[in-house]
Amino acid sequence: ENILQARPVVYRQIAVPQPGPQEYCTDSGLVVPSISYELRTRLLSVAERHGLSLERRLEMTGVCASQMALTLLGGPNRLTPKNVHQRPTVAVLCGPHVQGAQGISCGRHLANHEVEVILFLPNFVKMLDAVAGELTLYGKTEGKHVSSIKELPDSPVDLIINCLDCHENTFLMDQPWYRAAADWANQNRAPVLSLDPPVGGQGQAVEAKWTLSLALPLPLTEGAGRVYLCDIGVPRQVFQEVGIEYHSPFGCKFVVPLHSA
Amino acid sequence: ENILQARPVVYRQIAVPQPGPQEYCTDSGLVVPSISYELRTRLLSVAERHGLSLERRLEMTGVCASQMALTLLGGPNRLTPKNVHQRPTVAVLCGPHVQGAQGISCGRHLANHEVEVILFLPNFVKMLDAVAGELTLYGKTEGKHVSSIKELPDSPVDLIINCLDCHENTFLMDQPWYRAAADWANQNRAPVLSLDPPVGGQGQAVEAKWTLSLALPLPLTEGAGRVYLCDIGVPRQVFQEVGIEYHSPFGCKFVVPLHSA
Repeated sequence: ENILQARPVVYRQIAVPQPGPQEYCTDSGLVVPSISYELRTRLLSVAERHGLSLERRLEMTGVCASQMALTLLGGPNRLTPKNVHQRPTVAVLCGPHVQGAQGISCGRHLANHEVEVILFLPNFVKMLDAVAGELTLYGKTEGKHVSSIKELPDSPVDLIINCLDCHENTFLMDQPWYRAAADWANQNRAPVLSLDPPVGGQGQAVEAKWTLSLALPLPLTEGAGRVYLCDIGVPRQVFQEVGIEYHSPFGCKFVVPLHSA
Repeated sequence: ENILQARPVVYRQIAVPQPGPQEYCTDSGLVVPSISYELRTRLLSVAERHGLSLERRLEMTGVCASQMALTLLGGPNRLTPKNVHQRPTVAVLCGPHVQGAQGISCGRHLANHEVEVILFLPNFVKMLDAVAGELTLYGKTEGKHVSSIKELPDSPVDLIINCLDCHENTFLMDQPWYRAAADWANQNRAPVLSLDPPVGGQGQAVEAKWTLSLALPLPLTEGAGRVYLCDIGVPRQVFQEVGIEYHSPFGCKFVVPLHSA
């Protein structure tokens, strides 16, 4: 099968209209540029118009983020039938927005895999439909839901998943529940996985060890830790519709590590 | 952390109301009973009532089935930037039902990962909403869609994904397009992955090398080949609502191999 002539390998297979300040590359050397939040919003809204609904995206993000979290927790060594008395504990900290809904979905899939999940989401009178829907489904797992920081454990958990931040509403950071949750995360000594955090520079209340970005990375600060990219199923023609020349950087994976180029 | 006393490991963690004729076990020895098609239908309909919509299920099934297919195709060795001139080819054979929609979703995720996908789905005047929606999304990938067997390749493909069969409508097997597609699959020498096939004994038109069952396995015949189980995200309390005592057999995975117990 190797009779075909070797062609030079092209590593720059993604071209964006306005290259962001940061560029990453994958383990195999493929270049992954960052995009602005505005462009990503446009990408997701075109995807939705073609049927990649928020519901689908929440499901896929939850599955892929939980796969990453299960690996971080120790994977097959940690989750065996012989280890049921040492199930890992994960705290998922969520705000009342799409980022929070992604966290709840991730928490549900972790709870489905027998991880001890404690979901923090404050009580709100009116909730986004996406958040309410995720919460109903999460309620069918054995995972716990707490609305006050006082109900979070005093001892270190195995992993904190941070979904407190929202891309658009930075005034959330001034809310007492937000500050209390961020303080709790910083005092607990568990490593933090940040799920789809906003563009860097808005001030990171909780420093992450790992960050999972969706579709294409936003420009992130150093507080984001090691950056991973998550496939959320956007087909190539949708990228093209918003002016992005795209070939998948994922190979056979759905989550890949990125390195600063 | 090992000061806790070792407790005997429980391998029988799933109990179903009417145990089916077949029982399986996972690599780690957990027992997985089969369930009837009626019970599985009830399970999925209760899950839907709690918000695990068909759309979500299609997305998750597509992601997990494509992850399995990518592994079968050779995983990281096959899908590297150095190998773009030898992209694997997969034929996905679909009927006009939910099983077919699952296949289209799987095909979309494979196409998103730069696999050459050829989707066979005959033309129908009226199509199930779920099938039509998947087809629209699939249309945004570089994957091909053919409605006639004549447009399928003469040479062997790398993998055939069989989603021709439906759980309820066995008269489909008498349709000319069904027989032609089954003949094509049997003549092409590619290995076959069967996605969510119906209960065995209904006559398997295409013999599978691997079968991917969803949630809990149905009783399958030998023609199903090696059986794998796919997590489709049903929370434990939903299992309980239909009388199934359930603990996840998946460990940190979303697809696990099953063995005849």
